[in-house]
Amino acid sequence: MTLAVWPRPRLRLGMVGGGLGGNIGTSHRTAALMDGRWDLVAGALSRDADRARASAAAWQIAPDRAYTDHAAMAEAEAARPDGIDAVTICTPNSSHHPIAMAFLAAGIHVICDKPLTVSPALADELLAAARVRGRVFAVTHTYSGYPMVRMAREMIAAGELGTVRSCAVEYASQYQAEPAEPDDWQNDPAVSGPLGIVAGTGTHAHHLIEFVTGARVVELSADLATLVPGHRLEDHATMHLRFDNGARGYLWNTTIACGNENGLAFRVYGEKGGLAWRQEHPNHLFHSPLRAPTRILTRGGFGAGPAAEAVSRVPAGHPEGYLEAFANLYAEIADAVLAAKTGAPPPAAPFPTVEDGARGVRFMFAARASAKEGSRFVALDNP
Amino acid sequence: MTLAVWPRPRLRLGMVGGGLGGNIGTSHRTAALMDGRWDLVAGALSRDADRARASAAAWQIAPDRAYTDHAAMAEAEAARPDGIDAVTICTPNSSHHPIAMAFLAAGIHVICDKPLTVSPALADELLAAARVRGRVFAVTHTYSGYPMVRMAREMIAAGELGTVRSCAVEYASQYQAEPAEPDDWQNDPAVSGPLGIVAGTGTHAHHLIEFVTGARVVELSADLATLVPGHRLEDHATMHLRFDNGARGYLWNTTIACGNENGLAFRVYGEKGGLAWRQEHPNHLFHSPLRAPTRILTRGGFGAGPAAEAVSRVPAGHPEGYLEAFANLYAEIADAVLAAKTGAPPPAAPFPTVEDGARGVRFMFAARASAKEGSRFVALDNP
Amino acid sequence: MTLAVWPRPRLRLGMVGGGLGGNIGTSHRTAALMDGRWDLVAGALSRDADRARASAAAWQIAPDRAYTDHAAMAEAEAARPDGIDAVTICTPNSSHHPIAMAFLAAGIHVICDKPLTVSPALADELLAAARVRGRVFAVTHTYSGYPMVRMAREMIAAGELGTVRSCAVEYASQYQAEPAEPDDWQNDPAVSGPLGIVAGTGTHAHHLIEFVTGARVVELSADLATLVPGHRLEDHATMHLRFDNGARGYLWNTTIACGNENGLAFRVYGEKGGLAWRQEHPNHLFHSPLRAPTRILTRGGFGAGPAAEAVSRVPAGHPEGYLEAFANLYAEIADAVLAAKTGAPPPAAPFPTVEDGARGVRFMFAARASAKEGSRFVALDNP
Amino acid sequence: MTLAVWPRPRLRLGMVGGGLGGNIGTSHRTAALMDGRWDLVAGALSRDADRARASAAAWQIAPDRAYTDHAAMAEAEAARPDGIDAVTICTPNSSHHPIAMAFLAAGIHVICDKPLTVSPALADELLAAARVRGRVFAVTHTYSGYPMVRMAREMIAAGELGTVRSCAVEYASQYQAEPAEPDDWQNDPAVSGPLGIVAGTGTHAHHLIEFVTGARVVELSADLATLVPGHRLEDHATMHLRFDNGARGYLWNTTIACGNENGLAFRVYGEKGGLAWRQEHPNHLFHSPLRAPTRILTRGGFGAGPAAEAVSRVPAGHPEGYLEAFANLYAEIADAVLAAKTGAPPPAAPFPTVEDGARGVRFMFAARASAKEGSRFVALDNP
Repeated sequence: MTLAVWPRPRLRLGMVGGGLGGNIGTSHRTAALMDGRWDLVAGALSRDADRARASAAAWQIAPDRAYTDHAAMAEAEAARPDGIDAVTICTPNSSHHPIAMAFLAAGIHVICDKPLTVSPALADELLAAARVRGRVFAVTHTYSGYPMVRMAREMIAAGELGTVRSCAVEYASQYQAEPAEPDDWQNDPAVSGPLGIVAGTGTHAHHLIEFVTGARVVELSADLATLVPGHRLEDHATMHLRFDNGARGYLWNTTIACGNENGLAFRVYGEKGGLAWRQEHPNHLFHSPLRAPTRILTRGGFGAGPAAEAVSRVPAGHPEGYLEAFANLYAEIADAVLAAKTGAPPPAAPFPTVEDGARGVRFMFAARASAKEGSRFVALDNP
Repeated sequence: MTLAVWPRPRLRLGMVGGGLGGNIGTSHRTAALMDGRWDLVAGALSRDADRARASAAAWQIAPDRAYTDHAAMAEAEAARPDGIDAVTICTPNSSHHPIAMAFLAAGIHVICDKPLTVSPALADELLAAARVRGRVFAVTHTYSGYPMVRMAREMIAAGELGTVRSCAVEYASQYQAEPAEPDDWQNDPAVSGPLGIVAGTGTHAHHLIEFVTGARVVELSADLATLVPGHRLEDHATMHLRFDNGARGYLWNTTIACGNENGLAFRVYGEKGGLAWRQEHPNHLFHSPLRAPTRILTRGGFGAGPAAEAVSRVPAGHPEGYLEAFANLYAEIADAVLAAKTGAPPPAAPFPTVEDGARGVRFMFAARASAKEGSRFVALDNP
Repeated sequence: MTLAVWPRPRLRLGMVGGGLGGNIGTSHRTAALMDGRWDLVAGALSRDADRARASAAAWQIAPDRAYTDHAAMAEAEAARPDGIDAVTICTPNSSHHPIAMAFLAAGIHVICDKPLTVSPALADELLAAARVRGRVFAVTHTYSGYPMVRMAREMIAAGELGTVRSCAVEYASQYQAEPAEPDDWQNDPAVSGPLGIVAGTGTHAHHLIEFVTGARVVELSADLATLVPGHRLEDHATMHLRFDNGARGYLWNTTIACGNENGLAFRVYGEKGGLAWRQEHPNHLFHSPLRAPTRILTRGGFGAGPAAEAVSRVPAGHPEGYLEAFANLYAEIADAVLAAKTGAPPPAAPFPTVEDGARGVRFMFAARASAKEGSRFVALDNP
Repeated sequence: MTLAVWPRPRLRLGMVGGGLGGNIGTSHRTAALMDGRWDLVAGALSRDADRARASAAAWQIAPDRAYTDHAAMAEAEAARPDGIDAVTICTPNSSHHPIAMAFLAAGIHVICDKPLTVSPALADELLAAARVRGRVFAVTHTYSGYPMVRMAREMIAAGELGTVRSCAVEYASQYQAEPAEPDDWQNDPAVSGPLGIVAGTGTHAHHLIEFVTGARVVELSADLATLVPGHRLEDHATMHLRFDNGARGYLWNTTIACGNENGLAFRVYGEKGGLAWRQEHPNHLFHSPLRAPTRILTRGGFGAGPAAEAVSRVPAGHPEGYLEAFANLYAEIADAVLAAKTGAPPPAAPFPTVEDGARGVRFMFAARASAKEGSRFVALDNP
């Protein structure tokens, strides 16, 4: 309930991809708008000119700022006195890299969808470019914006679980429970990358468990499979995880599990207790202290700590959801962009960045390497 | 996922009450902003000048449109060429009536918090004034904006339950589980009205069950009690309900139930099945067809119908919450205001209006009358 | 896990009613057998001679102890040196009284199904007879045998909720969601009594809330209705409750609620916290202390107190169910019968007795009286 | 509700291990007694003579049939005309083999706890001995006795999920969340075997997923770890599973997960739908047909099929639990023993046998082999 509110100038946002017809643009726009921190003023919302125009009109973007080409947009916006402060990239995986490079080159801050890139090398380039250019580069691992995820992270950092020993993370969905449509870009390695949607959800799961525990996956063993006929890319992954603090765990990641709408969940167990959270019921965090009954911690409720309160808007019992979690990231990114504009030191907010994105890509490629070698454990070389 | 999006002009919103320090203004503002349908451009956000100024600044309202008096605001905004299209009233109960009258008199559309007024007579005045002035007058029974509430309403209207026989509605919270603070206006009959918070939550519950079933409460028996020492107004109500279609039911409404953060819920049973919904898990609707297993209907999921889809933004499994429900009302009100501005016929959207608000006030006063007479049944005289 | 086990002689049980073809006999038999406290050795299991014989054979009752008439059974068993210690009565409501009177007259302890009788006067007779004869007389309000119900009772008695203020109890089922079968005795006032199944489930609910809170309902207002065409008896009841400690509450009791398999539940709120329990998930008790997160107390788990432990068999996480709750009553009744046989003082176990049964009958008849007078409050005259 | 009941003679049961002070004997005894199929008449309940005597007395076993040595018991009971029909073995893991061999040699049917043995070779010996002797040999993978587990198995066998593609099974508990007590035999490799409790719960999980799917694990990759200081045996296992029908899956098995009382659960996904079941809420089975809402199938409820009905006692909404699941196995074993006694062909009941037990032991030793070799996949050589 204490989402900090004080006078701050609004920022100007542009979007590449995300036009009408899909969901992702609506999510980004709604998240950006709801707290009054951003105005959406420019976009290359589609490569199809008609759709780009219609999308821009629907979203009240001025016609002269409705582009069809990201490079033209980067150049034009960089040249305007009222040009965008940041761009959000909502395109298919394989185009993240060139688009982000173009906006970084234009000196514009970047918000990019996951997985960051379709290879570790491309991720490294983005990481290096962001550093050289000194731009904010966020990656939208949205789930890290949920208040009770922040609460879990805060509790673990404060030692409330003691040493973390076991981590279970899963991302089960039914997005691909049936054979893919012919035009599904997520089934096309040329567009989706060699790991497709498994990389998209896998990097979410990987980021989430690292975000919450503060630990790093350092070794993994993976089994990857393509279980639905007609899929050209893997749709099922299981992993053994080993963390830098000695913890073990598993990751289960599949898109073929009928009935799982968006089944991202984690459970973490330490010497002094356990925590469990499910994305589909995000306002609740189950805390099981050693030798004591499980407590239901709620967003806004008794027991919610400062980290959760900092990203809450409404009182307990009034559910916040996915869009609010997303908006929390946009609010934190806004603060970081404002700081960058004024030369102030960057705020301490934990929104995911290009480093996290690059680590996720390496993680998925390590899984691929393990799977190709009979699931033997492989070490991660994190950036 | 099909929240209709097409080019429509933004509207200008003003707010009375709701300044920083409380929750209610934040909810209204966020709901108004998130879909890009409204700009918040004016406000009399507090009667305290400093707080009014600070609130306006935090929300990027220009200083010359930061008022401390609602009458001055109504006059000034009505006189501006870029004056507000509608005002949202977030003040304590007893001031709803004069403020709404002032803005109606200025020709400005009104959005008002519940309970509408502190007496049926005052509610009748507002109803009459809205009709005379031909203004949109919405009452924020927010919970009717949830997609799965819309789904329940649609299913019942389509006859999927057959004749509705039994309705259970409850609103259990812990807002007043402890003795009231001395400055709590909800405990002050002069500000809160003779029924205080029980009227606030009771009218929500009453509206919800009528909204979902399409039936009207025509008789009730109520027991009201003040159970927490120091409370000056009732904090506990139970009611027997009789509906115009022959259905029976109960309503339980209390603010002293520890552990209930915002426990609004309904269950409806008909000859062909039952429905159950809980506000704290709003993306799920449980449907129990006669002689068949219970089905979990989900927002955005398989089985969600057009009414739910029309007010959804993101795919299944990505929880929408209270603020999205609220935003759904703001979007529907925007359409109604646009139609009024252009002289188009009003759209068919089911957002709650001054009629619903007036019916709620009558409902609570009927409960009061029954309670005073040993809980005998009394008939409602609905507008 | 500490269900007390020490050498105690087995007792001999007889049964009237309950033969094959129904559920109730199986429940009683299984509950009686599972802890090795009772042998089922005699029965008048049906008025139909063939069914009585077949039922006795299936349950390994010797043919000479398979009766078709309860009076003959009482006489014969009383005369045997190895006659039954107690009889369990599983017949339709209207025959409870004569059967119980016959066995009491024969000096045999009685276990009787609910509702105890079909009128308060008959209940009073049984109460008086049990006292005169000095026999144990249990009434199977089974739900009071659940460990977590015992835990709730213990917590409230220990003051963990402080003064109890609000009680919500409901018993929603779908037993009669459709028009009754022609031969359904529960729809026949001559057999079922003037309140039928609503009295059966209503007395369960009434007993449960009094058992848990230790408070007594002293006034009620009721609305009764027959909502399903073809029902000759009420199928829907709502009540306002007032307790002797000043608490208020509601009771909702219906048999027409599709999807509710056996929806008995209570919620109790006091000045220091709340408790919630649902019969369909009986191993969990939700405890919401004031200003603290809700805790999930579990049977056998950390936080389970002595009263729950005393009636548990297996460790936490191994669900116990309805039959174990029932068996807990049978074990406590066995102890009481053993004490009576040896002249020892009766043990302190809280199994429900004829007093509870008589209070339940009065409760339902008071509800009937209130309903007939426009739901005005009526006072209970408890035994 | 149709647990078949017809006249059948009672059988005589003996028990080795399981005396007072532990839980396991109580579970077996209660399960054996509740349906009136078995009498517990003999036991070597403890190696401690006093405890053996006290336990026998508490359970009404005649003093002359209270043994302290299993070999003496096997010999004496085999020699009695009223000797036991079957023995149930509730001792620590390492003694299962010699005890079972002794009773098989005496011609007595065997019921044995899991894991069957502490090596595959010993399991093979028991399997061979049972075949040679022609005795019933059950292994108490209790969870396969739950009605809704039977329902899942039946649905999958009937093709309701189509080809099974993905299986997730987990057994998370908190039994060893803290350092072991010095006298905990489950932490002593000499008594518990080289895999300790991980083998106990792991074989349960393995059996359950094979039982439900009808598929066999043919390859696995495992990571085993000892995460709690002071544990001498592994307390954490993750596995990638590959099944003979092409399905993939994971198994997570740990005893250190605070808050998990007995967290056995499976989820199975096929081309036409998914199923999910949790042991702690065993009366519900969640069925998610492709492109349709999830349905909650309940024990005894609408939609429950013949396999579930065959092992149910009470109507829907009256929870059955762990002991009833256990009793279902005891009832099926009784039928098998009766058939063996009379030379009738063995009934078709699916209770787990020595074959299942031996397969479980091989499974866990394969996991051990994989873990020792960097988690590479290893093939199972199933009996």
